[in-house]
Amino acid sequence: MTDITIIGSGNMARAIGTRAVAAGRSVQVLDRTPENAAKLAAELGGTTTSGGLSEVPEGDIVVLALYFGPAKEVATHFGDTLSGKTVVEISNPIDTETFDSLVVGPGTSAAEEIAALLPGARVVKAFNTTFAGTLGAGTKGGMPLDVFIASDSEQARNEVAAFAEAAGLRPLQVGGLRHARELEGFQLLIMALQANPAYPDFNWGTGLKIID
Amino acid sequence: MTDITIIGSGNMARAIGTRAVAAGRSVQVLDRTPENAAKLAAELGGTTTSGGLSEVPEGDIVVLALYFGPAKEVATHFGDTLSGKTVVEISNPIDTETFDSLVVGPGTSAAEEIAALLPGARVVKAFNTTFAGTLGAGTKGGMPLDVFIASDSEQARNEVAAFAEAAGLRPLQVGGLRHARELEGFQLLIMALQANPAYPDFNWGTGLKIID
Repeated sequence: MTDITIIGSGNMARAIGTRAVAAGRSVQVLDRTPENAAKLAAELGGTTTSGGLSEVPEGDIVVLALYFGPAKEVATHFGDTLSGKTVVEISNPIDTETFDSLVVGPGTSAAEEIAALLPGARVVKAFNTTFAGTLGAGTKGGMPLDVFIASDSEQARNEVAAFAEAAGLRPLQVGGLRHARELEGFQLLIMALQANPAYPDFNWGTGLKIID
Repeated sequence: MTDITIIGSGNMARAIGTRAVAAGRSVQVLDRTPENAAKLAAELGGTTTSGGLSEVPEGDIVVLALYFGPAKEVATHFGDTLSGKTVVEISNPIDTETFDSLVVGPGTSAAEEIAALLPGARVVKAFNTTFAGTLGAGTKGGMPLDVFIASDSEQARNEVAAFAEAAGLRPLQVGGLRHARELEGFQLLIMALQANPAYPDFNWGTGLKIID
């Protein structure tokens, strides 16, 4: 049995997979290059399985650990296969030429565009404010990382929150999927600060946190 | 000589005034009710002066320590009197009936609407992610508070950053004034979490921080 399917084999796939295995969840890694999926699965260890995109995603939770463009392609590829599943969309649709704007217009978000491609799935925005290195560790400055979660499905928000909590993170549910707009918007600023030489202490390894 | 004029006499006026006096800046407090301005000025101490809205704002930096509605009224009232000044706009234009949306549309922000009323001023968005109690203290969890700063004027961003730094805070410049959209949008989520009984540790006293 697979709890979580991760699609992708890059840094975010590795980070989320690491947290999933730490949480005792069984993981399947799928990638368009099956060798890369197999390599990551071996690295994650446990009972992790792997395959290419011709495989069926087995997890109740499917994480699109992909940039926005590939996430759209994968959503289109799988389509109704993902119906009834909780699909986690993590991307930041940032114009990486300028780090000054998003490639989605105001009044929408990457998550909402992915949701439009997957009408039968419960799409959740999460993990877009956690950088891969920090997420792999799970903590920053001795504190559990905050994971902001938005979805129109309360069930799906709760599933992802339970996963985050089991993985040693702090889930924060911020409401409906349209709040992905604010999550993606703010992460634009966070990423621009990482890319800004005026802030040498920020180097793609910070953690965004509500200190209480 | 006045360095900073604070318009308003509420909790945010008190917090910013406290930081300004701590930074060794001379402060003028103006309020539509002069008695309230005088009371806050006495509380802040130092060389703080006070007056009503018939007074001329003397500071090179003028902070509108007001909700969005009153901030618009005050901007309209002073108009060209604020030309050539750095005007700091701090509001969060949140629908407080629902805590689920902003009262400004996508593609604009409170700060940009205020800037449209003050074409001769250098409008800066800042201090909208710092709650009053936390800002008055200046730190949270032993760390200096982050102050996110957006403005189309580099000079104005630098002035506000220098003030924040002198006040023991960490200034983070995020670019042009349109990035007030992302600052206001994210603070909607932060405020909704404070109002959400599912998060009892959040009680309008948290600090938003990039942990490095």
